[in-house]
Amino acid sequence: MFRSGSFVIAVAGSALFAIGVRGKDNGLAITPQMGYTTKFPRGMAAVADDIHALNLGFGMYSDAGRYTCGMYEGSLGHETVDANSFAEWGVDYLKYDNCYNEGYAGNQLISSTRYRTMGDALNATGRPILYSLCNWGEDYPWNWGSTVANSWRISGDIFDDWDAYDARCPCEGPDAWNCELPGFHCSVTNIFNKVAFIVSKAQPGAWNDLDMLEVGNGAMTDPEYVAHFSMWSAVKSPLIMGNDLRDIAPQDLSILSNAAVIAVNQDPLGQSAARRWLCHGNGTNGESGGSGIQLWSGNLKGTVHEDYNDYVVLLVNGNNNATVMNATLEDIFVDSGPRGHAPQVDMSWEVRDLWAGRMSNETAQAIIDASAVASNTTNGYNATTITSGGNATAIFDNRYNATAMSYADGLAANNSILLGSVTTTVQPSGTLTANVDRHGAAMFRLRAIPTAVRKRDEL
Amino acid sequence: MFRSGSFVIAVAGSALFAIGVRGKDNGLAITPQMGYTTKFPRGMAAVADDIHALNLGFGMYSDAGRYTCGMYEGSLGHETVDANSFAEWGVDYLKYDNCYNEGYAGNQLISSTRYRTMGDALNATGRPILYSLCNWGEDYPWNWGSTVANSWRISGDIFDDWDAYDARCPCEGPDAWNCELPGFHCSVTNIFNKVAFIVSKAQPGAWNDLDMLEVGNGAMTDPEYVAHFSMWSAVKSPLIMGNDLRDIAPQDLSILSNAAVIAVNQDPLGQSAARRWLCHGNGTNGESGGSGIQLWSGNLKGTVHEDYNDYVVLLVNGNNNATVMNATLEDIFVDSGPRGHAPQVDMSWEVRDLWAGRMSNETAQAIIDASAVASNTTNGYNATTITSGGNATAIFDNRYNATAMSYADGLAANNSILLGSVTTTVQPSGTLTANVDRHGAAMFRLRAIPTAVRKRDEL
Amino acid sequence: MFRSGSFVIAVAGSALFAIGVRGKDNGLAITPQMGYTTKFPRGMAAVADDIHALNLGFGMYSDAGRYTCGMYEGSLGHETVDANSFAEWGVDYLKYDNCYNEGYAGNQLISSTRYRTMGDALNATGRPILYSLCNWGEDYPWNWGSTVANSWRISGDIFDDWDAYDARCPCEGPDAWNCELPGFHCSVTNIFNKVAFIVSKAQPGAWNDLDMLEVGNGAMTDPEYVAHFSMWSAVKSPLIMGNDLRDIAPQDLSILSNAAVIAVNQDPLGQSAARRWLCHGNGTNGESGGSGIQLWSGNLKGTVHEDYNDYVVLLVNGNNNATVMNATLEDIFVDSGPRGHAPQVDMSWEVRDLWAGRMSNETAQAIIDASAVASNTTNGYNATTITSGGNATAIFDNRYNATAMSYADGLAANNSILLGSVTTTVQPSGTLTANVDRHGAAMFRLRAIPTAVRKRDEL
Amino acid sequence: MFRSGSFVIAVAGSALFAIGVRGKDNGLAITPQMGYTTKFPRGMAAVADDIHALNLGFGMYSDAGRYTCGMYEGSLGHETVDANSFAEWGVDYLKYDNCYNEGYAGNQLISSTRYRTMGDALNATGRPILYSLCNWGEDYPWNWGSTVANSWRISGDIFDDWDAYDARCPCEGPDAWNCELPGFHCSVTNIFNKVAFIVSKAQPGAWNDLDMLEVGNGAMTDPEYVAHFSMWSAVKSPLIMGNDLRDIAPQDLSILSNAAVIAVNQDPLGQSAARRWLCHGNGTNGESGGSGIQLWSGNLKGTVHEDYNDYVVLLVNGNNNATVMNATLEDIFVDSGPRGHAPQVDMSWEVRDLWAGRMSNETAQAIIDASAVASNTTNGYNATTITSGGNATAIFDNRYNATAMSYADGLAANNSILLGSVTTTVQPSGTLTANVDRHGAAMFRLRAIPTAVRKRDEL
Repeated sequence: MFRSGSFVIAVAGSALFAIGVRGKDNGLAITPQMGYTTKFPRGMAAVADDIHALNLGFGMYSDAGRYTCGMYEGSLGHETVDANSFAEWGVDYLKYDNCYNEGYAGNQLISSTRYRTMGDALNATGRPILYSLCNWGEDYPWNWGSTVANSWRISGDIFDDWDAYDARCPCEGPDAWNCELPGFHCSVTNIFNKVAFIVSKAQPGAWNDLDMLEVGNGAMTDPEYVAHFSMWSAVKSPLIMGNDLRDIAPQDLSILSNAAVIAVNQDPLGQSAARRWLCHGNGTNGESGGSGIQLWSGNLKGTVHEDYNDYVVLLVNGNNNATVMNATLEDIFVDSGPRGHAPQVDMSWEVRDLWAGRMSNETAQAIIDASAVASNTTNGYNATTITSGGNATAIFDNRYNATAMSYADGLAANNSILLGSVTTTVQPSGTLTANVDRHGAAMFRLRAIPTAVRKRDEL
Repeated sequence: MFRSGSFVIAVAGSALFAIGVRGKDNGLAITPQMGYTTKFPRGMAAVADDIHALNLGFGMYSDAGRYTCGMYEGSLGHETVDANSFAEWGVDYLKYDNCYNEGYAGNQLISSTRYRTMGDALNATGRPILYSLCNWGEDYPWNWGSTVANSWRISGDIFDDWDAYDARCPCEGPDAWNCELPGFHCSVTNIFNKVAFIVSKAQPGAWNDLDMLEVGNGAMTDPEYVAHFSMWSAVKSPLIMGNDLRDIAPQDLSILSNAAVIAVNQDPLGQSAARRWLCHGNGTNGESGGSGIQLWSGNLKGTVHEDYNDYVVLLVNGNNNATVMNATLEDIFVDSGPRGHAPQVDMSWEVRDLWAGRMSNETAQAIIDASAVASNTTNGYNATTITSGGNATAIFDNRYNATAMSYADGLAANNSILLGSVTTTVQPSGTLTANVDRHGAAMFRLRAIPTAVRKRDEL
Repeated sequence: MFRSGSFVIAVAGSALFAIGVRGKDNGLAITPQMGYTTKFPRGMAAVADDIHALNLGFGMYSDAGRYTCGMYEGSLGHETVDANSFAEWGVDYLKYDNCYNEGYAGNQLISSTRYRTMGDALNATGRPILYSLCNWGEDYPWNWGSTVANSWRISGDIFDDWDAYDARCPCEGPDAWNCELPGFHCSVTNIFNKVAFIVSKAQPGAWNDLDMLEVGNGAMTDPEYVAHFSMWSAVKSPLIMGNDLRDIAPQDLSILSNAAVIAVNQDPLGQSAARRWLCHGNGTNGESGGSGIQLWSGNLKGTVHEDYNDYVVLLVNGNNNATVMNATLEDIFVDSGPRGHAPQVDMSWEVRDLWAGRMSNETAQAIIDASAVASNTTNGYNATTITSGGNATAIFDNRYNATAMSYADGLAANNSILLGSVTTTVQPSGTLTANVDRHGAAMFRLRAIPTAVRKRDEL
Repeated sequence: MFRSGSFVIAVAGSALFAIGVRGKDNGLAITPQMGYTTKFPRGMAAVADDIHALNLGFGMYSDAGRYTCGMYEGSLGHETVDANSFAEWGVDYLKYDNCYNEGYAGNQLISSTRYRTMGDALNATGRPILYSLCNWGEDYPWNWGSTVANSWRISGDIFDDWDAYDARCPCEGPDAWNCELPGFHCSVTNIFNKVAFIVSKAQPGAWNDLDMLEVGNGAMTDPEYVAHFSMWSAVKSPLIMGNDLRDIAPQDLSILSNAAVIAVNQDPLGQSAARRWLCHGNGTNGESGGSGIQLWSGNLKGTVHEDYNDYVVLLVNGNNNATVMNATLEDIFVDSGPRGHAPQVDMSWEVRDLWAGRMSNETAQAIIDASAVASNTTNGYNATTITSGGNATAIFDNRYNATAMSYADGLAANNSILLGSVTTTVQPSGTLTANVDRHGAAMFRLRAIPTAVRKRDEL
């Protein structure tokens, strides 16, 4: 496995390519023992070659149990032979699920041993394969996952809803982290509430996985999808598109391709934002935090001035109406000194709105159209030629090309696309205010004003 | 063990035959090491032959512990010899209990290992024996039971009451699934609340077992028994009669023999219904959900039109008064798309009341009388000749004969007895409304109206 | 170990003798490895001989850990040698504690294995030694204790208070049974609440142990001590005097020697009473049930008429004022049929007040005085001559002599001392009413009226 | 390891020296496998020599895991070689952390085994090394820690705040002791609430560790720091300074050097005070107890009269305003007899205010100035010459010199500095009253008035 940053959808010049993994219901995700010679008559290596030819990674799915969740053969007891097969085929990513685990669960030692066996087998192959541990947060994988895998799911499966309670995802509220029945049909705010307790467990190469994105699947509002993408980005969750790439709407493309938000997710420091406060509001689901308004903030690697970090501020509004929200510098910087003792409170901050530069629907539609033309081949995923498509040059002018330059390099180069749009300044001891949509979010990058006198090593 | 559908009471032409197992207090249920040569001087195989001659399966009871709950010898440490005895005797079903388990409990690995030992021993005999795991839901058997047994109890023992709290069944409310003291004297709504969290664990050959039915035992009202039988059927629990077969009242026979409801339980898809909402009402036991009104729905195998599934809708009224309940298509079909995005919401649905065809008390009494005449032999269970009894032909005209044709075949053949009575139609985006008895239930089968344009593969 | 009834203080002709065990702070309770040759220069066998000469059993204390709670050597890892020592010395009872258990706790398998080792060692000695397992209820000893020991503590250590909350005994309320920090300074109602969930685990030879009695220790009121003794008796807890035998007040002697209440505790059926309802009242500690009023009832072996059981009814008043309490036959007999379907509801019942015959303070004082004269020797415990003391014959006329006749035999003989005083009759479907003291209890034996027509085998 | 009293900052003549351990972010705390030859070119033994030359103990940090929390190499699997290195280097104290523990957690047996391995390795070296177990309270270390180590952390990491809730320290309220996600950013009252349940686990040589002190770090008020220091002292937590020794303010020095309070912490009996009551007030954080007012009391070794113990009384005010608090003798002495039955209630008590003799800011500043002059060498920690500094003699006149005389000896000698200032007397059955600052504490030593007639062996 490799430890080179959180796993993320590939975003190249705003043309979107997801790796070939969707878990249970994705044709690309196969298990090794199934009769794949029928489904894949040319063999899996040929499939991998095709995927790699698209500049995509090849994602594989298996299960640390007797069967996969879809009742195909699992890898429990066959870790080495399966890992070797994956490596031979050219697999780049393994999602390793938890169904039918034969009772090998119930405490951290039992669960970690089961998942470590596959991690060791993957490492022994010599091929870098991103190991995505998926035991739904049972037995506290955030405690042991970082020496076993690259990410670990923290909850039951996500559902395309903002805050609906479902009895099949029963863990909620302040004890939600302690969940032996993670279940599924978990709402966005249910999962986001769970990560609030374990944000510190995320680190470079080892991430809290909040499950796939629902952006574009249709049941949430645009502000809800904006908030969903912002929240997942701020806590450094892997960003895995869960929608159908072949049928994406422009307003969803403009969310998923927001490079300024993705840059927070891909920040070189690799530190998750943390929840500063949650105030219960008038939403419909107080237990999971869905009804409340929340302030999150966290460190980003500073670039504009060597002496200061940047910071991300995320305001989430679970109220059933648009709400003016206030974030004081005291609260934003509480980790650097409680009760306003943080030196950052005495500084002035440039506020950069990370959603201000969101792509217009017209531009997004033009990209989609261009992509459709470019990919109009027998292989629906073949989009490698998009950059030579019709009006692609013009369309991509204001987009960030992560293939050409990594996020780390782009941030180091102060690429304006990654930094958001300056909207205001917060004075010392001041307050950042935003009018946040119902079930929406506002997200900012704060950069120190150069005239501030304190230096980073004083913070 | 076999994987051919959930375990169910045999219902043949409305003449009822339960398999010979009642657990603790049933003379037929014996443990192998007890002095059975005294109680059964002809030996157990002879008993099995007699039972099989009645077209009944032979149920056996033992315990994964030092003793059975009744302090007979248990099978822990003697699994192979006992399983071999069971097979030699012709046993068809094993209920395997949890008393005196010598401390072999406390996490999933310890409990699953103990129960897997017997499962492996049963399989090694070569005889198909339905393996009914009964550890009262300790250590999450729904996680590991499906590769060990055919069903697993999810709770403490049932009691003949709708919603009475008893300290000896202490787990209630939203955390009720997490129960290390399942106890006994659990009410119907207490147990039903518990299955709400784990409905997805049920699958063909591996079922959540909500414990025996109390229908006919006398302490609940007729609507309560109707609701009880509907609830157990909707979630695919094994339906095991807990009453005395020799002394059944007509109104109880008409519940237990409702083929339209049993057809939901025996539906070939084998998917449990799920709770869509629970609204707390004015009943007497809010913690266990007994006081609330609930909507449940789920998939059934479609038959009338190839393109569409059928669906079951269950409305449960825990209020202390009759209540008009409303189920929107949006809520019924939320799994296919939240917030009304399910394509089924845009369709029209034929509503079939599964209790409308309930047998009249007169008919039920006639069957009971005929059965008594037919079985008036020295063997109280000998009812195999009932079909040649007096007015049997007339009585059975409108009943479903599951011996002659399986539920799967009957559903495929659109047997009208299994489909309920059409009462109304729900228009697109409409609402299904029913006036539900105090502590009662309404249960419907929804079938797509042929004029609907969407096809199944679009759903 | 032996299985011949619950452990109880020896009560012989109303002269009280407790076995020589007090746990942590009792000079008689020694651990084998301590320098006992200094404290007991004649050796332990000589001590045992002295105790046995008093017609007392010899109780020993040790600990399933590295040290005892008092930091003497424990028996963990030395079970066989210690058990052999105990047997050689003539030990009759072993209290086996849980301090310094070296981490051998955390699930049922770990804890049961640790305690089973000593149980097996005791059995291997061949000497009957009552094995009193004391792990404070950790890891659900009621599940595995019955095949390991004769009793198991269910809670942290008792404190001489009715309902005071102490943070050092943190488990309260409806989840109190699930306690990994049993602690100490647990009030009487805190412990009694805990047994409500596990009453069914008590059986002949294997008992829930609610810890020693506090009667006579001075901090509770007389009604509280009456209730405390009644509660412990009704649930078949071992009755271990926790007061100083040499300095007992008459009102405490009259509680501890109430043979009609002890006869419930020693009833041959060995079934615990169960809580029928708890209504929260105006007491000071709602969480532990201390504030509520409660009805308990349970089976007793019937004697007066062969066809019927007797029943015990216990009314506990946690309110801060005297309260008129009502117990319906429907509630008393709910286990035989919920909602009034029990056949006992249709019968008439003779009500016998088990406290009506409580010894007067004058009589108790006379016994104490006589005992003091008789025991005025160098050995403060030497009371074996009391039956030949001054006015002993007259004093003991109305007391029950359990040494001369067991409780089982006395009950079978309808000994009136054991049966309480008839106070009233409850008619079919009627209600038993009592005015119960603040923090007190009323306790009755119900006997069927002979004119009732139903027989036991119909119940 | 050694068992000679709780671990405490060295306080010599009021000049403060902390041992060289700060955990994650302290340069002195190194792990053995890191490239220390670069950071410490003269080797670690030379560093130890330097530290010892300052009359300081040498503290080491490592981790019972694959890595330390700072991602250096951990000692799991290398306990013997690392312990031997520590001993060779002259280490006196080991803080042994819990990060990256490879899943070796989840029950008491797994966790205790992991930590015992290092304890055994330390003991095998022959060098006395104080073993500071730090697994954040997971798996109930208070149950097994005393035979493994000298102290055990009971919570997540402390934060410099009185009562702020942080989702990263999620366990609060009455179940806070049962915490599988201890986290960090735990407030002072959050941690103090947790120790309330386990005070009895503290004993000589084995202590509940409430984490380092925040006094002097700047975010709390002076009354909050006074309360914090009082609370930690009363429950016998190790007192580890968490501030920067080189930059201490006079008001913080006067807290940290209060010998009368430290004498409670270092009392020879080694018994923790216990919470007598907690009344919820108007503070901002009811869950963690931060908002309430609390009475704590406990035994101290008596000295002035042989017949009586001393007692500590601690009143904590979490209200958002100054509050007059009352502590009755009945509540203070409840452990010696509930409901006023303690014999101490009938006595009179001299009340000694342990904060009345707090050093003035002028004196503290003078000490700091003298210390700065004395330590003005190339080695910032070199303060060994302070006692020969300018006006040191005068400054130290009223301070306690623990290097010259231990606290035990000082108490035995009735050193007035250790005993606080007599402020009032409480009469029999009386009440101790104090006006306590907002978020502050009052702390008293109670000494029996000689005219009292009861003797200690009657208590």
